[in-house]
Amino acid sequence: MDENVSVSEFLETAVEAAKIAGEVIRKGFYQTKHVEHKGQVDLVTETDKACEDLIFNHLKDRYPTHKFIGEETTAAYGTTELTDEPTWIVDPLDGTTNFVHGFPFVCISIGLTIAKVPTVGVVYNPILNELFTGIHGRGAFLNGNPIKVSSQTELVKSLLATEAGTKRDKTTVDATTNRINSLLFKVRSLRMSGSCALNLCGIACGRLDLFYETGFGGPWDVAAGVVIIKEAGGLVYDPSGKDFDITSQRVAASNPLLKDVFLEALQQSE
Amino acid sequence: MDENVSVSEFLETAVEAAKIAGEVIRKGFYQTKHVEHKGQVDLVTETDKACEDLIFNHLKDRYPTHKFIGEETTAAYGTTELTDEPTWIVDPLDGTTNFVHGFPFVCISIGLTIAKVPTVGVVYNPILNELFTGIHGRGAFLNGNPIKVSSQTELVKSLLATEAGTKRDKTTVDATTNRINSLLFKVRSLRMSGSCALNLCGIACGRLDLFYETGFGGPWDVAAGVVIIKEAGGLVYDPSGKDFDITSQRVAASNPLLKDVFLEALQQSE
Repeated sequence: MDENVSVSEFLETAVEAAKIAGEVIRKGFYQTKHVEHKGQVDLVTETDKACEDLIFNHLKDRYPTHKFIGEETTAAYGTTELTDEPTWIVDPLDGTTNFVHGFPFVCISIGLTIAKVPTVGVVYNPILNELFTGIHGRGAFLNGNPIKVSSQTELVKSLLATEAGTKRDKTTVDATTNRINSLLFKVRSLRMSGSCALNLCGIACGRLDLFYETGFGGPWDVAAGVVIIKEAGGLVYDPSGKDFDITSQRVAASNPLLKDVFLEALQQSE
Repeated sequence: MDENVSVSEFLETAVEAAKIAGEVIRKGFYQTKHVEHKGQVDLVTETDKACEDLIFNHLKDRYPTHKFIGEETTAAYGTTELTDEPTWIVDPLDGTTNFVHGFPFVCISIGLTIAKVPTVGVVYNPILNELFTGIHGRGAFLNGNPIKVSSQTELVKSLLATEAGTKRDKTTVDATTNRINSLLFKVRSLRMSGSCALNLCGIACGRLDLFYETGFGGPWDVAAGVVIIKEAGGLVYDPSGKDFDITSQRVAASNPLLKDVFLEALQQSE
Protein backbone atom coordinates (compact mmCIF):
# COMPACT_ATOMS: atom_id res chain seq x y z
CA MET A 1 0.00 0.00 0.00
CA ASP A 2 1.31 3.45 -0.97
CA GLU A 3 1.82 5.27 2.32
CA ASN A 4 0.68 8.65 0.98
CA VAL A 5 -2.52 7.12 -0.29
CA SER A 6 -3.23 5.43 3.02
CA VAL A 7 -2.60 8.64 4.99
CA SER A 8 -4.96 10.49 2.66
CA GLU A 9 -7.53 7.79 3.31
CA PHE A 10 -7.03 8.16 7.06
CA LEU A 11 -7.77 11.88 6.70
CA GLU A 12 -10.84 11.27 4.54
CA THR A 13 -12.21 8.73 6.99
CA ALA A 14 -11.56 11.08 9.92
CA VAL A 15 -13.37 13.91 8.11
CA GLU A 16 -16.33 11.59 7.48
CA ALA A 17 -16.41 10.66 11.17
CA ALA A 18 -16.20 14.33 12.19
CA LYS A 19 -19.08 15.28 9.89
CA ILE A 20 -21.26 12.46 11.26
CA ALA A 21 -20.59 13.55 14.85
CA GLY A 22 -20.98 17.18 13.80
CA GLU A 23 -24.62 16.59 12.92
CA VAL A 24 -25.30 15.31 16.44
CA ILE A 25 -23.48 18.25 18.01
CA ARG A 26 -25.26 20.77 15.83
CA LYS A 27 -28.63 19.32 16.79
CA GLY A 28 -27.77 19.32 20.51
CA PHE A 29 -26.29 22.83 20.33
CA TYR A 30 -29.62 24.33 19.36
CA GLN A 31 -31.50 22.22 21.94
CA THR A 32 -29.54 23.16 25.04
CA LYS A 33 -31.49 26.38 25.51
CA HIS A 34 -34.74 24.48 25.68
CA VAL A 35 -34.00 21.96 28.42
CA GLU A 36 -33.76 22.34 32.16
CA HIS A 37 -30.30 22.68 33.61
CA LYS A 38 -29.99 19.11 34.85
CA GLY A 39 -31.13 18.13 31.39
CA GLN A 40 -28.36 20.27 29.90
CA VAL A 41 -25.69 18.37 31.79
CA ASP A 42 -27.25 15.08 30.70
CA LEU A 43 -27.35 16.36 27.14
CA VAL A 44 -23.63 17.13 27.24
CA THR A 45 -22.77 13.69 28.58
CA GLU A 46 -25.09 12.01 26.11
CA THR A 47 -23.81 14.02 23.16
CA ASP A 48 -20.20 13.49 24.18
CA LYS A 49 -20.62 9.72 24.48
CA ALA A 50 -22.81 9.34 21.41
CA CYS A 51 -20.27 11.28 19.32
CA GLU A 52 -17.31 9.31 20.63
CA ASP A 53 -19.14 6.06 19.79
CA LEU A 54 -20.05 7.30 16.31
CA ILE A 55 -16.47 8.39 15.61
CA PHE A 56 -14.82 5.25 17.00
CA ASN A 57 -17.26 2.94 15.22
CA HIS A 58 -16.68 4.71 11.92
CA LEU A 59 -12.90 4.47 12.31
CA LYS A 60 -12.89 0.90 13.68
CA ASP A 61 -14.99 -0.29 10.76
CA ARG A 62 -12.25 0.82 8.42
CA TYR A 63 -9.20 0.27 10.62
CA PRO A 64 -9.94 -2.60 13.00
CA THR A 65 -6.27 -3.02 14.01
CA HIS A 66 -5.75 0.62 15.03
CA LYS A 67 -5.69 1.76 18.66
CA PHE A 68 -8.09 4.32 20.11
CA ILE A 69 -7.81 6.91 22.88
CA GLY A 70 -10.86 9.01 23.63
CA GLU A 71 -11.86 11.45 26.32
CA GLU A 72 -15.01 9.55 27.27
CA THR A 73 -13.38 6.12 27.13
CA THR A 74 -10.50 7.35 29.28
CA ALA A 75 -12.93 8.85 31.79
CA ALA A 76 -14.70 5.49 32.00
CA TYR A 77 -11.84 3.00 31.78
CA GLY A 78 -8.66 4.91 32.69
CA THR A 79 -5.66 5.94 30.64
CA THR A 80 -4.65 4.05 27.51
CA GLU A 81 -0.91 4.09 26.93
CA LEU A 82 0.24 5.71 23.70
CA THR A 83 2.22 3.13 21.68
CA ASP A 84 3.89 3.09 18.26
CA GLU A 85 0.74 1.56 16.74
CA PRO A 86 -1.46 3.86 14.64
CA THR A 87 -3.59 5.47 17.35
CA TRP A 88 -6.63 7.65 16.97
CA ILE A 89 -6.88 10.28 19.71
CA VAL A 90 -10.34 11.80 19.84
CA ASP A 91 -12.17 14.56 21.65
CA PRO A 92 -15.76 14.11 20.50
CA LEU A 93 -16.82 17.51 21.88
CA ASP A 94 -14.25 20.16 22.76
CA GLY A 95 -15.77 23.24 24.36
CA THR A 96 -18.47 21.56 26.47
CA THR A 97 -19.18 24.75 28.45
CA ASN A 98 -19.73 26.57 25.16
CA PHE A 99 -21.99 23.73 24.02
CA VAL A 100 -24.17 24.07 27.13
CA HIS A 101 -24.41 27.84 26.78
CA GLY A 102 -24.79 27.96 23.01
CA PHE A 103 -21.53 29.88 22.50
CA PRO A 104 -20.47 28.92 18.98
CA PHE A 105 -16.89 27.70 19.68
CA VAL A 106 -17.33 23.94 19.86
CA CYS A 107 -15.56 21.28 17.84
CA ILE A 108 -14.67 17.66 17.24
CA SER A 109 -10.95 16.92 17.38
CA ILE A 110 -9.58 13.76 15.73
CA GLY A 111 -5.83 13.12 15.64
CA LEU A 112 -3.88 10.10 14.44
CA THR A 113 -0.40 9.28 15.71
CA ILE A 114 1.84 6.76 13.93
CA ALA A 115 4.96 5.73 15.83
CA LYS A 116 3.86 8.39 18.34
CA VAL A 117 4.21 11.11 15.64
CA PRO A 118 1.02 13.19 15.19
CA THR A 119 0.31 12.48 11.53
CA VAL A 120 -3.29 13.40 10.71
CA GLY A 121 -5.40 16.13 12.31
CA VAL A 122 -9.05 17.05 11.85
CA VAL A 123 -10.78 19.78 13.85
CA TYR A 124 -14.36 20.52 12.85
CA ASN A 125 -16.60 23.27 14.20
CA PRO A 126 -20.07 22.21 13.04
CA ILE A 127 -21.71 25.46 14.17
CA LEU A 128 -19.49 27.81 12.16
CA ASN A 129 -18.94 25.08 9.54
CA GLU A 130 -15.16 25.35 9.72
CA LEU A 131 -13.13 22.24 8.96
CA PHE A 132 -9.40 22.40 9.76
CA THR A 133 -7.27 19.56 8.40
CA GLY A 134 -3.60 18.66 8.27
CA ILE A 135 -1.41 15.76 7.22
CA HIS A 136 2.21 15.50 8.37
CA GLY A 137 4.39 16.86 5.55
CA ARG A 138 1.48 17.84 3.34
CA GLY A 139 0.08 21.13 4.54
CA ALA A 140 -2.83 22.48 6.55
CA PHE A 141 -6.21 23.61 5.28
CA LEU A 142 -9.39 25.39 6.35
CA ASN A 143 -12.37 24.17 4.34
CA GLY A 144 -9.92 22.99 1.69
CA ASN A 145 -7.97 26.26 1.40
CA PRO A 146 -4.31 26.32 2.49
CA ILE A 147 -3.68 28.16 5.76
CA LYS A 148 -0.56 29.52 7.39
CA VAL A 149 0.40 31.07 10.70
CA SER A 150 0.64 34.85 11.07
CA SER A 151 3.80 36.69 10.08
CA GLN A 152 3.74 38.84 13.21
CA THR A 153 7.14 39.47 14.80
CA GLU A 154 6.27 41.81 17.69
CA LEU A 155 4.61 40.80 20.96
CA VAL A 156 3.03 44.23 21.29
CA LYS A 157 1.07 43.69 18.07
CA SER A 158 0.17 40.07 18.90
CA LEU A 159 -3.22 38.67 19.80
CA LEU A 160 -2.91 36.19 22.68
CA ALA A 161 -5.32 33.40 23.57
CA THR A 162 -5.53 31.39 26.77
CA GLU A 163 -8.23 29.85 28.96
CA ALA A 164 -9.28 30.15 32.58
CA GLY A 165 -9.52 26.35 32.83
CA THR A 166 -11.84 24.52 35.19
CA LYS A 167 -9.91 24.46 38.48
CA ARG A 168 -11.02 27.06 40.99
CA ASP A 169 -8.59 26.58 43.90
CA LYS A 170 -6.80 29.75 44.98
CA THR A 171 -3.34 28.68 43.81
CA THR A 172 -4.52 27.92 40.28
CA VAL A 173 -6.73 31.01 39.91
CA ASP A 174 -4.01 33.32 41.29
CA ALA A 175 -1.42 31.81 38.95
CA THR A 176 -3.82 32.22 36.01
CA THR A 177 -4.61 35.88 36.65
CA ASN A 178 -1.05 36.83 37.65
CA ARG A 179 0.17 35.43 34.36
CA ILE A 180 -2.53 37.31 32.45
CA ASN A 181 -1.63 40.50 34.32
CA SER A 182 2.03 40.18 33.34
CA LEU A 183 1.27 39.33 29.70
CA LEU A 184 -1.33 42.11 29.21
CA PHE A 185 1.44 44.69 29.48
CA LYS A 186 3.23 43.07 26.55
CA VAL A 187 0.64 41.95 23.99
CA ARG A 188 -2.06 43.74 22.03
CA SER A 189 -5.03 41.94 23.51
CA LEU A 190 -6.38 38.71 24.95
CA ARG A 191 -9.03 36.29 23.74
CA MET A 192 -10.65 33.42 25.65
CA SER A 193 -12.96 31.35 23.50
CA GLY A 194 -13.28 28.14 25.52
CA SER A 195 -11.87 25.52 23.13
CA CYS A 196 -8.25 24.39 23.25
CA ALA A 197 -8.44 22.67 19.84
CA LEU A 198 -9.93 25.77 18.20
CA ASN A 199 -7.30 27.98 19.81
CA LEU A 200 -4.63 25.79 18.19
CA CYS A 201 -6.41 26.13 14.84
CA GLY A 202 -6.62 29.90 15.44
CA ILE A 203 -2.82 29.94 15.60
CA ALA A 204 -2.63 27.77 12.47
CA CYS A 205 -4.73 30.15 10.37
CA GLY A 206 -3.20 33.32 11.83
CA ARG A 207 -6.30 34.62 13.66
CA LEU A 208 -4.30 34.35 16.84
CA ASP A 209 -0.58 34.94 17.26
CA LEU A 210 0.07 33.38 20.67
CA PHE A 211 -1.60 30.65 22.70
CA TYR A 212 -0.79 28.84 25.93
CA GLU A 213 -2.79 26.65 28.23
CA THR A 214 -1.92 24.40 31.13
CA GLY A 215 -4.16 21.90 32.87
CA PHE A 216 -6.49 21.11 29.96
CA GLY A 217 -8.20 17.72 29.66
CA GLY A 218 -5.70 15.50 27.91
CA PRO A 219 -3.98 14.56 24.63
CA TRP A 220 -7.34 14.55 22.80
CA ASP A 221 -7.43 18.36 23.12
CA VAL A 222 -4.18 18.79 21.20
CA ALA A 223 -3.47 15.68 19.08
CA ALA A 224 -5.13 17.06 15.94
CA GLY A 225 -4.23 20.72 16.48
CA VAL A 226 -0.50 20.14 16.69
CA VAL A 227 -0.43 18.57 13.20
CA ILE A 228 -2.46 21.43 11.78
CA ILE A 229 -0.23 24.10 13.38
CA LYS A 230 3.02 22.48 12.29
CA GLU A 231 1.74 22.06 8.75
CA ALA A 232 0.69 25.72 8.74
CA GLY A 233 4.28 26.71 9.52
CA GLY A 234 3.85 27.12 13.27
CA LEU A 235 5.50 25.71 16.36
CA VAL A 236 4.08 23.87 19.34
CA TYR A 237 6.16 23.76 22.51
CA ASP A 238 5.97 23.52 26.26
CA PRO A 239 5.32 26.88 27.98
CA SER A 240 8.62 26.34 29.83
CA GLY A 241 10.48 26.18 26.51
CA LYS A 242 11.01 22.42 26.65
CA ASP A 243 9.83 20.13 23.87
CA PHE A 244 6.08 19.66 23.63
CA ASP A 245 4.85 16.46 25.27
CA ILE A 246 1.39 15.39 24.11
CA THR A 247 0.66 13.75 27.47
CA SER A 248 1.69 16.70 29.65
CA GLN A 249 -1.45 18.89 29.59
CA ARG A 250 0.78 21.90 28.87
CA VAL A 251 0.96 23.63 25.51
CA ALA A 252 2.17 26.84 23.90
CA ALA A 253 2.07 27.75 20.22
CA SER A 254 2.99 30.56 17.86
CA ASN A 255 4.71 31.23 14.58
CA PRO A 256 8.51 30.61 14.65
CA LEU A 257 9.31 34.36 14.76
CA LEU A 258 7.50 34.90 18.06
CA LYS A 259 8.64 31.77 19.92
CA ASP A 260 11.64 33.24 21.75
CA VAL A 261 9.98 36.48 22.83
CA PHE A 262 6.83 34.61 23.85
CA LEU A 263 8.81 32.13 25.96
CA GLU A 264 10.65 35.01 27.60
CA ALA A 265 7.34 36.71 28.40
CA LEU A 266 5.89 33.45 29.73
CA GLN A 267 8.88 32.91 31.98
CA GLN A 268 8.66 36.46 33.32
CA SER A 269 4.98 35.87 34.04
CA GLU A 270 5.52 32.91 36.38
CA MET B 1 -47.67 58.74 10.08
CA ASP B 2 -48.35 55.63 12.18
CA GLU B 3 -45.53 55.53 14.72
CA ASN B 4 -45.18 51.73 14.61
CA VAL B 5 -44.84 51.80 10.87
CA SER B 6 -42.17 54.49 10.99
CA VAL B 7 -40.17 52.63 13.65
CA SER B 8 -40.34 49.47 11.53
CA GLU B 9 -39.06 51.51 8.60
CA PHE B 10 -36.22 52.86 10.73
CA LEU B 11 -35.22 49.28 11.50
CA GLU B 12 -35.47 48.20 7.86
CA THR B 13 -33.35 51.12 6.75
CA ALA B 14 -30.77 50.42 9.44
CA VAL B 15 -30.59 46.75 8.39
CA GLU B 16 -30.06 47.84 4.77
CA ALA B 17 -27.26 50.15 5.88
CA ALA B 18 -25.67 47.40 7.98
CA LYS B 19 -25.76 44.95 5.08
CA ILE B 20 -24.14 47.47 2.72
CA ALA B 21 -21.34 48.16 5.21
CA GLY B 22 -21.11 44.43 5.94
CA GLU B 23 -20.01 43.75 2.38
CA VAL B 24 -17.11 46.16 2.79
CA ILE B 25 -16.11 44.65 6.13
CA ARG B 26 -16.32 41.10 4.81
CA LYS B 27 -14.07 42.00 1.89
CA GLY B 28 -11.53 43.73 4.14
CA PHE B 29 -11.64 40.91 6.70
CA TYR B 30 -10.28 38.40 4.21
CA GLN B 31 -7.69 40.91 2.90
CA THR B 32 -6.00 41.81 6.16
CA LYS B 33 -3.81 38.69 6.09
CA HIS B 34 -2.36 39.73 2.75
CA VAL B 35 -1.16 43.24 3.50
CA GLU B 36 1.83 44.51 5.43
CA HIS B 37 1.21 45.59 8.99
CA LYS B 38 1.22 49.32 8.30
CA GLY B 39 -1.18 48.50 5.52
CA GLN B 40 -3.40 46.65 7.97
CA VAL B 41 -3.75 49.71 10.16
CA ASP B 42 -4.57 51.79 7.10
CA LEU B 43 -7.08 49.18 6.03
CA VAL B 44 -8.83 49.41 9.41
CA THR B 45 -9.03 53.18 9.25
CA GLU B 46 -10.17 53.12 5.64
CA THR B 47 -12.76 50.42 6.26
CA ASP B 48 -14.02 52.16 9.40
CA LYS B 49 -14.44 55.51 7.62
CA ALA B 50 -15.82 54.04 4.43
CA CYS B 51 -18.42 52.08 6.40
CA GLU B 52 -19.43 55.05 8.53
CA ASP B 53 -19.90 57.14 5.36
CA LEU B 54 -21.94 54.39 3.69
CA ILE B 55 -24.17 53.98 6.73
CA PHE B 56 -24.67 57.70 7.36
CA ASN B 57 -25.34 58.43 3.69
CA HIS B 58 -27.91 55.65 3.51
CA LEU B 59 -29.67 56.90 6.65
CA LYS B 60 -29.41 60.61 5.74
CA ASP B 61 -30.95 59.97 2.35
CA ARG B 62 -34.07 58.66 4.05
CA TYR B 63 -34.04 60.79 7.20
CA PRO B 64 -32.41 64.12 6.42
CA THR B 65 -33.66 65.75 9.64
CA HIS B 66 -32.24 63.10 11.99
CA LYS B 67 -29.07 63.61 14.02
CA PHE B 68 -25.99 61.39 13.75
CA ILE B 69 -23.29 60.31 16.18
CA GLY B 70 -20.53 58.05 14.89
CA GLU B 71 -17.25 56.80 16.22
CA GLU B 72 -15.24 58.12 13.28
CA THR B 73 -17.06 61.46 13.12
CA THR B 74 -16.57 61.94 16.86
CA ALA B 75 -12.88 61.10 16.56
CA ALA B 76 -12.57 63.75 13.83
CA TYR B 77 -14.88 66.51 15.05
CA GLY B 78 -15.39 65.92 18.78
CA THR B 79 -18.42 64.89 20.78
CA THR B 80 -21.93 65.49 19.50
CA GLU B 81 -24.41 66.09 22.31
CA LEU B 82 -27.26 63.60 22.55
CA THR B 83 -30.56 65.49 22.25
CA ASP B 84 -34.24 64.50 22.15
CA GLU B 85 -34.14 64.49 18.34
CA PRO B 86 -34.09 61.08 16.62
CA THR B 87 -30.37 60.29 16.70
CA TRP B 88 -28.52 57.49 14.98
CA ILE B 89 -25.55 56.26 17.00
CA VAL B 90 -23.22 54.17 14.88
CA ASP B 91 -20.12 52.05 15.29
CA PRO B 92 -19.22 51.13 11.72
CA LEU B 93 -16.74 48.46 12.83
CA ASP B 94 -16.78 47.10 16.37
CA GLY B 95 -13.93 44.69 17.07
CA THR B 96 -11.18 46.39 15.07
CA THR B 97 -8.43 44.24 16.64
CA ASN B 98 -10.38 41.14 15.57
CA PHE B 99 -10.75 42.66 12.10
CA VAL B 100 -6.98 43.12 11.77
CA HIS B 101 -6.24 39.60 12.99
CA GLY B 102 -9.06 37.85 11.15
CA PHE B 103 -10.78 36.70 14.37
CA PRO B 104 -14.43 36.37 13.36
CA PHE B 105 -16.07 38.56 16.04
CA VAL B 106 -16.57 41.86 14.21
CA CYS B 107 -19.79 43.77 13.70
CA ILE B 108 -21.61 46.91 12.69
CA SER B 109 -23.67 48.49 15.46
CA ILE B 110 -26.49 50.91 14.58
CA GLY B 111 -28.73 52.31 17.30
CA LEU B 112 -31.47 54.94 17.15
CA THR B 113 -32.51 57.00 20.16
CA ILE B 114 -35.75 59.00 20.19
CA ALA B 115 -36.16 61.42 23.07
CA LYS B 116 -32.91 59.86 24.35
CA VAL B 117 -34.62 56.43 24.61
CA PRO B 118 -32.76 53.68 22.70
CA THR B 119 -35.52 52.62 20.30
CA VAL B 120 -34.02 50.64 17.44
CA GLY B 121 -30.96 48.41 17.52
CA VAL B 122 -29.14 46.54 14.75
CA VAL B 123 -25.94 44.56 15.30
CA TYR B 124 -24.66 42.65 12.28
CA ASN B 125 -21.71 40.26 12.18
CA PRO B 126 -21.03 39.91 8.44
CA ILE B 127 -18.46 37.12 8.92
CA LEU B 128 -20.74 34.75 10.85
CA ASN B 129 -23.79 36.20 9.07
CA GLU B 130 -25.61 36.94 12.33
CA LEU B 131 -28.07 39.83 12.37
CA PHE B 132 -29.37 40.89 15.79
CA THR B 133 -32.30 43.33 15.77
CA GLY B 134 -34.59 44.94 18.32
CA ILE B 135 -37.31 47.55 18.46
CA HIS B 136 -38.39 49.12 21.77
CA GLY B 137 -41.51 47.25 22.93
CA ARG B 138 -41.52 44.81 20.04
CA GLY B 139 -39.00 42.07 20.76
CA ALA B 140 -35.49 41.05 19.79
CA PHE B 141 -34.43 38.73 16.99
CA LEU B 142 -31.44 36.86 15.61
CA ASN B 143 -31.76 36.40 11.85
CA GLY B 144 -35.49 36.91 12.24
CA ASN B 145 -36.00 34.39 15.05
CA PRO B 146 -37.07 35.65 18.49
CA ILE B 147 -34.33 35.52 21.13
CA LYS B 148 -34.37 35.72 24.88
CA VAL B 149 -31.84 35.96 27.68
CA SER B 150 -30.78 32.83 29.58
CA SER B 151 -32.86 31.55 32.48
CA GLN B 152 -29.78 30.94 34.63
CA THR B 153 -30.18 31.84 38.32
CA GLU B 154 -26.82 30.77 39.78
CA LEU B 155 -23.52 32.61 39.40
CA VAL B 156 -21.59 29.35 39.66
CA LYS B 157 -23.27 28.05 36.51
CA SER B 158 -22.96 31.35 34.64
CA LEU B 159 -20.74 32.16 31.69
CA LEU B 160 -19.16 35.61 32.12
CA ALA B 161 -17.80 37.87 29.39
CA THR B 162 -15.57 40.90 29.73
CA GLU B 163 -12.70 42.54 27.83
CA ALA B 164 -9.15 43.52 28.62
CA GLY B 165 -9.70 46.90 26.96
CA THR B 166 -6.99 48.94 25.32
CA LYS B 167 -5.38 50.81 28.24
CA ARG B 168 -2.13 49.29 29.46
CA ASP B 169 -1.20 51.49 32.44
CA LYS B 170 -0.55 49.55 35.64
CA THR B 171 -3.59 50.83 37.53
CA THR B 172 -5.99 49.76 34.78
CA VAL B 173 -4.38 46.37 34.11
CA ASP B 174 -4.17 45.55 37.83
CA ALA B 175 -7.82 46.51 38.33
CA THR B 176 -8.81 44.39 35.33
CA THR B 177 -7.01 41.24 36.47
CA ASN B 178 -7.89 41.65 40.16
CA ARG B 179 -11.54 41.82 39.19
CA ILE B 180 -11.20 38.74 36.98
CA ASN B 181 -9.42 36.92 39.80
CA SER B 182 -12.25 37.65 42.22
CA LEU B 183 -14.99 36.71 39.74
CA LEU B 184 -13.33 33.46 38.57
CA PHE B 185 -14.00 31.94 41.99
CA LYS B 186 -17.72 32.60 41.54
CA VAL B 187 -18.66 31.91 37.92
CA ARG B 188 -18.37 28.88 35.65
CA SER B 189 -16.00 30.40 33.12
CA LEU B 190 -14.86 33.52 31.31
CA ARG B 191 -14.99 34.52 27.65
CA MET B 192 -13.25 37.44 25.96
CA SER B 193 -14.23 37.85 22.34
CA GLY B 194 -13.19 41.43 21.61
CA SER B 195 -16.49 43.09 20.66
CA CYS B 196 -18.61 44.98 23.17
CA ALA B 197 -21.67 45.04 20.89
CA LEU B 198 -21.46 41.29 20.27
CA ASN B 199 -21.06 40.63 23.99
CA LEU B 200 -24.33 42.51 24.57
CA CYS B 201 -25.99 40.40 21.86
CA GLY B 202 -24.51 37.29 23.49
CA ILE B 203 -26.42 38.22 26.66
CA ALA B 204 -29.56 38.88 24.61
CA CYS B 205 -29.57 35.42 23.01
CA GLY B 206 -28.46 33.59 26.17
CA ARG B 207 -25.01 32.48 24.95
CA LEU B 208 -23.57 34.50 27.79
CA ASP B 209 -25.10 35.03 31.22
CA LEU B 210 -23.05 37.95 32.53
CA PHE B 211 -21.15 40.81 30.91
CA TYR B 212 -19.41 43.91 32.17
CA GLU B 213 -16.98 46.33 30.62
CA THR B 214 -15.62 49.71 31.61
CA GLY B 215 -13.63 52.12 29.50
CA PHE B 216 -14.91 51.06 26.08
CA GLY B 217 -15.03 53.50 23.17
CA GLY B 218 -18.33 55.33 23.54
CA PRO B 219 -22.12 55.23 23.18
CA TRP B 220 -21.78 53.67 19.69
CA ASP B 221 -20.59 50.42 21.32
CA VAL B 222 -23.79 50.01 23.33
CA ALA B 223 -26.62 52.03 21.71
CA ALA B 224 -27.94 49.14 19.64
CA GLY B 225 -27.11 46.35 22.08
CA VAL B 226 -29.10 47.84 24.96
CA VAL B 227 -32.32 47.81 22.92
CA ILE B 228 -31.70 44.22 21.86
CA ILE B 229 -30.98 43.04 25.43
CA LYS B 230 -34.00 44.79 26.93
CA GLU B 231 -36.28 43.40 24.24
CA ALA B 232 -34.85 39.92 24.90
CA GLY B 233 -35.92 40.23 28.54
CA GLY B 234 -32.55 41.29 29.93
CA LEU B 235 -31.27 44.20 31.97
CA VAL B 236 -28.54 46.72 31.32
CA TYR B 237 -27.10 48.60 34.28
CA ASP B 238 -24.04 50.33 35.59
CA PRO B 239 -21.50 47.92 37.17
CA SER B 240 -21.92 49.94 40.40
CA GLY B 241 -25.64 49.15 40.45
CA LYS B 242 -26.69 52.64 39.39
CA ASP B 243 -28.84 53.23 36.32
CA PHE B 244 -27.15 52.68 33.00
CA ASP B 245 -25.90 55.89 31.37
CA ILE B 246 -25.22 55.52 27.64
CA THR B 247 -22.50 58.20 27.78
CA SER B 248 -20.60 56.74 30.76
CA GLN B 249 -18.44 54.04 29.08
CA ARG B 250 -19.51 51.62 31.82
CA VAL B 251 -21.92 48.75 31.26
CA ALA B 252 -23.10 45.54 32.89
CA ALA B 253 -25.82 43.20 31.65
CA SER B 254 -27.56 39.96 32.56
CA ASN B 255 -30.98 38.43 32.87
CA PRO B 256 -33.12 39.90 35.70
CA LEU B 257 -32.58 36.83 37.94
CA LEU B 258 -28.81 37.29 38.08
CA LYS B 259 -28.66 41.08 38.50
CA ASP B 260 -28.45 41.24 42.29
CA VAL B 261 -25.91 38.43 42.73
CA PHE B 262 -23.83 39.77 39.83
CA LEU B 263 -23.77 43.29 41.31
CA GLU B 264 -22.75 41.85 44.69
CA ALA B 265 -19.93 39.91 43.02
CA LEU B 266 -18.84 42.99 41.05
CA GLN B 267 -18.77 45.10 44.21
CA GLN B 268 -16.72 42.48 46.05
CA SER B 269 -14.29 42.44 43.12
CA GLU B 270 -13.39 46.13 43.34
